[in-house]
Amino acid sequence: MSQTFRVTRRVEFRDTDMAGIVHFSVFFNYMEQAEHEFLRSLGMGVIYEFEGREVSWPRVNAACNYRRAIKFEQLIDIALSVARIGEKSVTYAFRFEHQGQLVAEGEITAVCCLFQPGGPPRSIPIPEGIRCKLQPFARESESN
Amino acid sequence: MSQTFRVTRRVEFRDTDMAGIVHFSVFFNYMEQAEHEFLRSLGMGVIYEFEGREVSWPRVNAACNYRRAIKFEQLIDIALSVARIGEKSVTYAFRFEHQGQLVAEGEITAVCCLFQPGGPPRSIPIPEGIRCKLQPFARESESN
Amino acid sequence: MSQTFRVTRRVEFRDTDMAGIVHFSVFFNYMEQAEHEFLRSLGMGVIYEFEGREVSWPRVNAACNYRRAIKFEQLIDIALSVARIGEKSVTYAFRFEHQGQLVAEGEITAVCCLFQPGGPPRSIPIPEGIRCKLQPFARESESN
Amino acid sequence: MSQTFRVTRRVEFRDTDMAGIVHFSVFFNYMEQAEHEFLRSLGMGVIYEFEGREVSWPRVNAACNYRRAIKFEQLIDIALSVARIGEKSVTYAFRFEHQGQLVAEGEITAVCCLFQPGGPPRSIPIPEGIRCKLQPFARESESN
Repeated sequence: MSQTFRVTRRVEFRDTDMAGIVHFSVFFNYMEQAEHEFLRSLGMGVIYEFEGREVSWPRVNAACNYRRAIKFEQLIDIALSVARIGEKSVTYAFRFEHQGQLVAEGEITAVCCLFQPGGPPRSIPIPEGIRCKLQPFARESESN
Repeated sequence: MSQTFRVTRRVEFRDTDMAGIVHFSVFFNYMEQAEHEFLRSLGMGVIYEFEGREVSWPRVNAACNYRRAIKFEQLIDIALSVARIGEKSVTYAFRFEHQGQLVAEGEITAVCCLFQPGGPPRSIPIPEGIRCKLQPFARESESN
Repeated sequence: MSQTFRVTRRVEFRDTDMAGIVHFSVFFNYMEQAEHEFLRSLGMGVIYEFEGREVSWPRVNAACNYRRAIKFEQLIDIALSVARIGEKSVTYAFRFEHQGQLVAEGEITAVCCLFQPGGPPRSIPIPEGIRCKLQPFARESESN
Repeated sequence: MSQTFRVTRRVEFRDTDMAGIVHFSVFFNYMEQAEHEFLRSLGMGVIYEFEGREVSWPRVNAACNYRRAIKFEQLIDIALSVARIGEKSVTYAFRFEHQGQLVAEGEITAVCCLFQPGGPPRSIPIPEGIRCKLQPFARESESN
């Protein structure tokens, strides 16, 4: 059974738009924030020192399906799982709920990259030490 | 041949993050802003008075593929086309370029809804007057 | 002795800019978020039902002095006090610290307004029930 | 007579909040964006190469008075002038109008700093070449 990482946050005023609900673009900020809390919970920052060099995770894809509006001050429960671990990338899946009802579902795919001063980021195979920490959150059939 | 709506904008400082590039979530704001300029160019606001009632377009889906980073002060060319017009929804496709090079591609699907005071939005078939204006921007094979 | 309301938050990635620090405009969002948590702690929302009508607090002034940069993932301690309660307005003072060092100091002045459907907001004397709750947080010399 | 730099922008959907108006924090983004366009109009970026080193302008103070709400899709005229040029800092004043009516007035004070890799920014006297370009926009009595 794969594990799920859960966080709850309250909708801030800055997250709303004039329709009175969380703006659709803000769900991507919520996903990222949950991803960062997840990485911190594993003892890794989103910017990660690895063998003396800086590793981080530029995004190559992001998507969200919206099912139900959510409003200012409401609590939102976010469940993160790892949908897929590739050689160089990881895809996170997010499920947003309010009081047990589905609000939205999203995905972010991020690529493991080395950052070197002055040069562009270079994609690398996910280091084994990171892969080990992500594995317990990967959905079974897709984690091999 | 379907038409394309084009806008150019300059990356603002507030659009960047500490990686020095446009934050991935901001592309969704750029898409929305292009959509709104498109609707204005057709003589419709994104909030639209139709037969005495308010019509607007809540999002049910949004997605983006990122190919290349874009930085503060750079110009970004956005091309909007209509990927699909359904009975009640429209899917916009966006292509982002900087100096002729692909930066990102995205999509937003929005549902035509009536807003009534005090009640939830209710999806309706896209009114014929709106459909006519969107049609010239629809990709051929999908517009029937 | 006046009371102080305290919250701690972690800097999110969306709060940073390409200088690698919290963008100066984001401190205003942090102030507002602290104000809203403060009002919730007193049993009032920022939008408040009062004698069957909606009371809220449009801003007439906001200001911030910046002393020290603060970065992604750092914890920021925010102390809110009530600098002044006028007949119709309240001025909140905010002190931002990181590990005991001053980061910034700010103020927001908000006016108590009745919101009525279709009309503009109308300023009103702060209702006694609200004033009572704010009073313990007011700095002594200015609360009369 | 001092000169004024003017820009006009349209309120974007992402700038609004659930009160249906431009969020008060967004005026600081508008000020910054006008400042950047102003610097570009003078042939300087906000990040400026000066004698081989990087000069930029961290903020030490920002403030805004709000007089009138402004809504989605409305046009906002922004007039920038230089309220004060000090030895190391510059204070910009901003006036926001919609259809000739005052919406808000704000100020930002920024300090001229050298950025050096790995070290903190260090304030420096404003280089003469920059001071000359700012001077025509300075209010007379305060520019000496």
